Formats: sequence, structure tokens, C-alpha cells
Amino acid sequence: MGAGAMGEIKHLVVVKFKEGVVIEEIIKGMEKLVTEVDLVKSFEWGQDTEGPEMLTQGFTHSFSMTFDKKEDYAAFQSHPNHVEYSATFSAAIEKIVVLCFPYVRVKPTAG
Amino acid sequence: MGAGAMGEIKHLVVVKFKEGVVIEEIIKGMEKLVTEVDLVKSFEWGQDTEGPEMLTQGFTHSFSMTFDKKEDYAAFQSHPNHVEYSATFSAAIEKIVVLCFPYVRVKPTAG
Repeated sequence: MGAGAMGEIKHLVVVKFKEGVVIEEIIKGMEKLVTEVDLVKSFEWGQDTEGPEMLTQGFTHSFSMTFDKKEDYAAFQSHPNHVEYSATFSAAIEKIVVLCFPYVRVKPTAG
Repeated sequence: MGAGAMGEIKHLVVVKFKEGVVIEEIIKGMEKLVTEVDLVKSFEWGQDTEGPEMLTQGFTHSFSMTFDKKEDYAAFQSHPNHVEYSATFSAAIEKIVVLCFPYVRVKPTAG
């Protein structure tokens, strides 16, 4: 068992979008954002296909970003591109869970 | 933008544990499980440190596993070690969100 790269921070967002929202456009905007802002080290997302509704609780999408360090995450939060995108994103979601944490990678082991 | 490795499935679990649960033991059990079962390709977890309570909704921990393919995920679900561990895990959680999806990696780009 080992930690993720020293000090790395993961920013995890799980959402349910409002009815009528064009989800593809919201995601395209997020892809553009993370591509433009170098502070974001990695980004991946997915749409639930397998989860039983009892366990998804109606959430449908997951977005995960990593940052090299806490300071990069803080700088991203206040980056003008992020601030602008956040307004669009916030207006599109019905419910959200956000977790932000230094992560532990158990498998595969480093090296 | 590219997909994760062809067909790869991500299993994401976000939880709040019941009061009084010894979380370290639950996590130790999960680390043991994924180490013993080869079907699990990768596993990482984290405990929220940064999220504002308004956005964490009280959830504290995130667990993420990947599988090479849907069939491996299905086989893991019915694996005796998983079935046994699930009973322990289920008894320890106050609330849970589970998403399971083929994921799209936008950054870093593959290769």
C-alpha cells in the first residue's frame, strides 16, 4: 500500500443533472476547462450504466480531477475560467456531492 | 480526449460511516479484499479533508476500483471474499452512493 504521488489532491464530483439539461454541452465545457487550465493534472469522467437505482440514489455522473498539490487546487478554484464555468455547472445540477482528499493508492503498487 | 483502456469499468463508492464504527478496520478489510482478488485491477481511496460540508453532504470517504471488463466486475460481485466483506461493510455505513461506469479519460491524453 502506498500514497498517491506526494501531496496529490483528488477532487471528486458526483451529480444528478436537472431535467432538460443538455448534458453533452455541460461535459464539453468541463473538458474545455480542464484542457485550458494547466493546474489540472488529470481528469476523467463517467456516466453510470450498471449501478442499481437503490445505490446510485439518482446520481448519474462522476467527475474526477487530480492536482499536484493543495495550492494548485486552490488556484484552480479561483481561476477565472473555473469561476465562469461554475456558474453554468451550478445552474445545471439537481443534486451534488463533492469530496476532496489526498488519496491512497493500494493497487497497483507504485513502481 | 480518449476513453479509458478499452472496456474498463470503474466502480465508485462514496459513503458516510455510522457513528462508532472503527473506520480503519473497515478500510483494512477492503485493502485485504482487493489485494487478494486479482479481478480488481486498481484500487484507491481517500478521506475528505477539503470539501465544504454543504457540498460533501456528510459523505466522508471515497473508494474507487477499476476492472478490465464488465465480466470481471460481475465475477467480483459474486466472489465469496466480496460477499463476505460486503456484509461487514453494509453494516458499517449510514449512507452510500454507488456509481459504476465505463470511464472517459480526458487528461492526460493516452500515450
